[in-house]
Amino acid sequence: MAEAPIRLGMVGGGTDAFIGGVHRIASRIDGHYALVAGALSSTPDKAHASAEALGLPRSYGSYDEMAEAEAARDDGIEAVSIVTPNHVHAPAAIAFLERGIHVICDKPLTASMEDAERLADIARASSALFMLTHNYTGYPMIRQARDMVAAGDLGALRLVNVEYVQDWMTGPAEGKQAEWRVDPARSGAGGAIGDIGTHAYNLACFVSGLTLDRLAADLDAFGSGRALDDNAHVMLRWQGGAKGMLWCSQVAPGNENTLRLRLYGDKGGLDWSQEEPNKLWFTPFGEPKRLLTRAGAGATQGNLDASRIPGGHPEGYLEAFANLYSDAARAIHAHRAGTALPDDLLFPTIDDGLDGMRFIDACVRSSASDSAWVTP
Amino acid sequence: MAEAPIRLGMVGGGTDAFIGGVHRIASRIDGHYALVAGALSSTPDKAHASAEALGLPRSYGSYDEMAEAEAARDDGIEAVSIVTPNHVHAPAAIAFLERGIHVICDKPLTASMEDAERLADIARASSALFMLTHNYTGYPMIRQARDMVAAGDLGALRLVNVEYVQDWMTGPAEGKQAEWRVDPARSGAGGAIGDIGTHAYNLACFVSGLTLDRLAADLDAFGSGRALDDNAHVMLRWQGGAKGMLWCSQVAPGNENTLRLRLYGDKGGLDWSQEEPNKLWFTPFGEPKRLLTRAGAGATQGNLDASRIPGGHPEGYLEAFANLYSDAARAIHAHRAGTALPDDLLFPTIDDGLDGMRFIDACVRSSASDSAWVTP
Amino acid sequence: MAEAPIRLGMVGGGTDAFIGGVHRIASRIDGHYALVAGALSSTPDKAHASAEALGLPRSYGSYDEMAEAEAARDDGIEAVSIVTPNHVHAPAAIAFLERGIHVICDKPLTASMEDAERLADIARASSALFMLTHNYTGYPMIRQARDMVAAGDLGALRLVNVEYVQDWMTGPAEGKQAEWRVDPARSGAGGAIGDIGTHAYNLACFVSGLTLDRLAADLDAFGSGRALDDNAHVMLRWQGGAKGMLWCSQVAPGNENTLRLRLYGDKGGLDWSQEEPNKLWFTPFGEPKRLLTRAGAGATQGNLDASRIPGGHPEGYLEAFANLYSDAARAIHAHRAGTALPDDLLFPTIDDGLDGMRFIDACVRSSASDSAWVTP
Amino acid sequence: MAEAPIRLGMVGGGTDAFIGGVHRIASRIDGHYALVAGALSSTPDKAHASAEALGLPRSYGSYDEMAEAEAARDDGIEAVSIVTPNHVHAPAAIAFLERGIHVICDKPLTASMEDAERLADIARASSALFMLTHNYTGYPMIRQARDMVAAGDLGALRLVNVEYVQDWMTGPAEGKQAEWRVDPARSGAGGAIGDIGTHAYNLACFVSGLTLDRLAADLDAFGSGRALDDNAHVMLRWQGGAKGMLWCSQVAPGNENTLRLRLYGDKGGLDWSQEEPNKLWFTPFGEPKRLLTRAGAGATQGNLDASRIPGGHPEGYLEAFANLYSDAARAIHAHRAGTALPDDLLFPTIDDGLDGMRFIDACVRSSASDSAWVTP
Repeated sequence: MAEAPIRLGMVGGGTDAFIGGVHRIASRIDGHYALVAGALSSTPDKAHASAEALGLPRSYGSYDEMAEAEAARDDGIEAVSIVTPNHVHAPAAIAFLERGIHVICDKPLTASMEDAERLADIARASSALFMLTHNYTGYPMIRQARDMVAAGDLGALRLVNVEYVQDWMTGPAEGKQAEWRVDPARSGAGGAIGDIGTHAYNLACFVSGLTLDRLAADLDAFGSGRALDDNAHVMLRWQGGAKGMLWCSQVAPGNENTLRLRLYGDKGGLDWSQEEPNKLWFTPFGEPKRLLTRAGAGATQGNLDASRIPGGHPEGYLEAFANLYSDAARAIHAHRAGTALPDDLLFPTIDDGLDGMRFIDACVRSSASDSAWVTP
Repeated sequence: MAEAPIRLGMVGGGTDAFIGGVHRIASRIDGHYALVAGALSSTPDKAHASAEALGLPRSYGSYDEMAEAEAARDDGIEAVSIVTPNHVHAPAAIAFLERGIHVICDKPLTASMEDAERLADIARASSALFMLTHNYTGYPMIRQARDMVAAGDLGALRLVNVEYVQDWMTGPAEGKQAEWRVDPARSGAGGAIGDIGTHAYNLACFVSGLTLDRLAADLDAFGSGRALDDNAHVMLRWQGGAKGMLWCSQVAPGNENTLRLRLYGDKGGLDWSQEEPNKLWFTPFGEPKRLLTRAGAGATQGNLDASRIPGGHPEGYLEAFANLYSDAARAIHAHRAGTALPDDLLFPTIDDGLDGMRFIDACVRSSASDSAWVTP
Repeated sequence: MAEAPIRLGMVGGGTDAFIGGVHRIASRIDGHYALVAGALSSTPDKAHASAEALGLPRSYGSYDEMAEAEAARDDGIEAVSIVTPNHVHAPAAIAFLERGIHVICDKPLTASMEDAERLADIARASSALFMLTHNYTGYPMIRQARDMVAAGDLGALRLVNVEYVQDWMTGPAEGKQAEWRVDPARSGAGGAIGDIGTHAYNLACFVSGLTLDRLAADLDAFGSGRALDDNAHVMLRWQGGAKGMLWCSQVAPGNENTLRLRLYGDKGGLDWSQEEPNKLWFTPFGEPKRLLTRAGAGATQGNLDASRIPGGHPEGYLEAFANLYSDAARAIHAHRAGTALPDDLLFPTIDDGLDGMRFIDACVRSSASDSAWVTP
Repeated sequence: MAEAPIRLGMVGGGTDAFIGGVHRIASRIDGHYALVAGALSSTPDKAHASAEALGLPRSYGSYDEMAEAEAARDDGIEAVSIVTPNHVHAPAAIAFLERGIHVICDKPLTASMEDAERLADIARASSALFMLTHNYTGYPMIRQARDMVAAGDLGALRLVNVEYVQDWMTGPAEGKQAEWRVDPARSGAGGAIGDIGTHAYNLACFVSGLTLDRLAADLDAFGSGRALDDNAHVMLRWQGGAKGMLWCSQVAPGNENTLRLRLYGDKGGLDWSQEEPNKLWFTPFGEPKRLLTRAGAGATQGNLDASRIPGGHPEGYLEAFANLYSDAARAIHAHRAGTALPDDLLFPTIDDGLDGMRFIDACVRSSASDSAWVTP
């Protein structure tokens, strides 16, 4: 018997924003949500115009107004997607969590460690759920990689290297997407390391199951007059003895959105690239490389669970994103029913968000200390 | 101002079918449709169980029943998706078209030439719209390829080669997906040539803008006891002097869903593969190869119009499929408003469907005549 | 104990020719030959200038002169490489074979069927050896593919498809390389089909072990005023029931030298591309694709025998060519010693050459008969 | 007029060694050398057996004996290739340099900084030439990359990242190739960082034209009981403000010999991988990626000079290696003639060798100081 759609609201995500549209599509793909309310811009006129263009039943001029009004309705929103610049994440999330409304929040968690810790305290205390959209964890081959590491297919991990490379900030930062990302007040202390480095770090942790012990970072701002890093080289020491590197850059021409994760153990290796997300290279040491595919031969349960259609029919970024929304829907359905949460939920939590903030903070501290090893 | 969602019904597509699920997701991605009714199986019990599982408001035991009941309602469906085995396409489509309900029909058009021509007559006479889901035309890089050919970037076309290769019928045909496809009564005269060869043919026509003059085909059924072809080699002569080959197979191990189109003119060449759909190789003769990407540098308007998110964030099969649904929605909105249809609609029409049937028929005739050249 | 180098002569291959230089490098790579004499051009002045530039001890104005003089010397050449335009192959080869000098001859065998048959008679009757440089058979991964087919790794073969695609004749044919290739008097009845189609055909036979039963061909000359084909589409019926296609083209922009062979049986598939020659894709049906590499994990004996250095250190075209020369050297050493030839020689023989000529002839005949099926 | 072949000797490189065979083939490919003498093993019996198997005219039991005897002959060797374990490089090279015999030496330069500096002093003072076989600099596309950086095609360099990854030491180190590499007495202070890290570093310098300012390294020996590093992560700060990373590993399953160099400036990016050496990706910022090829469209002079055959006919590792030998031959010919050396020689010199040793030393020092930044 099908569940009634979850009533969803959105903060940020006016019609000229990138990530708001992504969240809306992701919420629709599997049919678990109905978007019914929004405070789509910090400028009320823009908010209302966007809401009208999208056909939203209810539009608000601010998230506070929305939180209050929706909490008071019988048919008010059950969950809210927060897709604003980073510095708004914490106050907005808190406004909803405190009213028992579930929060689906874009990354990184907040713009400051203080905000992050405050939000974490509130989220942990709240009966409402908190999910962070580290969307790359939603890819089926990433789920397969995680399954394989957990199953010991690589043996003991020795190396976890990850890179996330873009080129769109090679020239001067211009346009709405760039503007707030280079402003410390809205973005936080991290530039590229916050915007994409946290994705890379989160992905490495998600797949490897490892915890970072220490890091040594060298951050640069190559763009002229840029206050925040647009390139970061980071050496990693994982607890238990594995090592790694993380490189993120937004000034590497020829890279649209090159997120690549490699893991090596004493029995085998894995190699995955986001721009060809339906493939995963697996090499058992001493044997030929194997090309594993989404829903293909040798698929793990995690791969199959995250797949909608047969192998050879590419799923992409939006489906991976939708996997997080659908996982959240399962949790929200359980919450509705008053039953225990499923024990196989995979969406990133407030703790992952806090981890990411500590990672950014550690990178900034290390770089400021001439790349000394620091603990996140 | 947002349009109200189009009320959609579905014929076929019970919860154990592949393509029904694809149509449902495709209809949701851009938010233009609400699925409100279904006759999801030819077995009423199955139909109702599927409808309940999907949360459909109205479930019917047959398409006839649905067509009649929905046509009588003020809030009845405006459009229907037909996702049954091939032999049901014609009678179901006719039932809806005759009641003024738009039809979105899976390919190939029908199981026989007679059905195809009858349906074509009715569709052309109907005020309702007919769209055929040759979904591969919805990929942004295919739209770019079409734009580039039309703009003369390849010069005069000399060669249009296409192949569509799978491996899932290598062993005995088993399972729901295979069963009806090897049965001439339900599938029609073509096996692989009908199931996937028509996609390849349609794609070649869509991008090249060429019309086929003659073909010579060699069809085989390698699977033991198989009544329909599972492999076809076809030589193509296009009107105007270009040549080509079409190869389709379902017995080539190592090919999940390898659809590849190559076009060569006297000024340049294009090469596209469905399993890496966000890429398109373009070589202006005498210059280095260029890798064009979805929404990337050098994107044409057709590429951009068919894209939702920035380059480097892979869109896939479902988004391409959704592009057809969204194009249909634009047409249906115009129909609602009583205005002229947009002149830039790209969805495949009844004529494309009839063309595809003639192509299947010609392949079968040629192969039966020792690969003589025949006119489709 | 090392063998003394084989004294080698060369006919054709002046310093401005492509393939002569290739033969010279190939003869040096493994150190089995010493090039000591040449008739490097049909123009004596050019011949002597090239010989001097190359430091050849003995230079001749014609192959006849060379054959006679060298046969009379105690230290005369033991073998000769013939690297002229096609129409010279037969008379030159005969001049040497009749004097007991081994012949290493470029492909295709000759420019006419008559020449081919005459040469074949003489070669079979001669005590001297005849080798045809279908050099692509020398690639280690091609040797592996052949081993795997023979071992039954693909099961019963169903499909053998091959394509050889270039772009250098897209514009007007110019330059020394192009000039004789478009002249039927020097090239023979085949254009692209003779120049590269024979390579593709030979490779398909070499790896599959199959014999062609019939073919149906469609040949075109797209280049303006071109007397010979520059594109050929061919459907293949192999003895025993397998099918295939062969496509060769020299007018497909974006293809430098794209030779690709695919074989599919009821148990698995293989896929190899000349431009990435150290790789071979193998898919056992129902399992993940495996990327086999030169001298890598899972290498067959044929792969190892044809490799000089470890995997990951690319060997290329010249090493593959050298493998034919080294195989010939083993035969020549046996001939010197008066012992039986090794039973594992893999170089293409006069019979392969005759087969290739029959293939060209059949393609031309079929194309002239509106692509009727013909027997080669 | 052809030059007489250069009389070449070899130290090390018995028939069971890898790199000796590579040097021999490289010396033969372009026909500039004749190998006439050898001290092929430190064990005289082995040395003589190898010499006989190779057909060498003169065999010696030690390099000292060879140096002395050959220097005394009128037809003695003019150059010697030193292909022993690292600790023998210095004494052997010195023995020949002091007798005026040119030295072609494998990398790294020596096993210790002391040896390196002593050898450098002697090499600089010697009238004989010294060449270090950082063979990866010989690839045509590397020459093209260097030309393009020098021509400003990337603009001001910001990032130079390089990785050299293998997997053959994933398990216990066994066999002749592994044995001496894990022994500090024969290999020196660097394991992977000396064996392959120096190649990566040299390549980055060769192409970028940059000089390293400081590095911070984290070295590990994952193999059980291994005294030397088998993995190194290194952060790089180049003079002038560019940054970078170097990763080398011999314990990453799935990597046969993955050497990859990426350079990014404010105008464009380059990406090259050794396992597909005939390709070079170039992206002018804001334009589509271009795939440049060996001797293909857009080839620079350096690319063409290092190429023997047309694009699409893969050249490989051995040809790249041969390019160094041929460059050395040009220098030796000039030396013979008493003329000035050509000013476009590209082979790595004693200074490059010393640089490499300082790089190893700096990595070891940094790693021992908890990855502090150190000056090489």
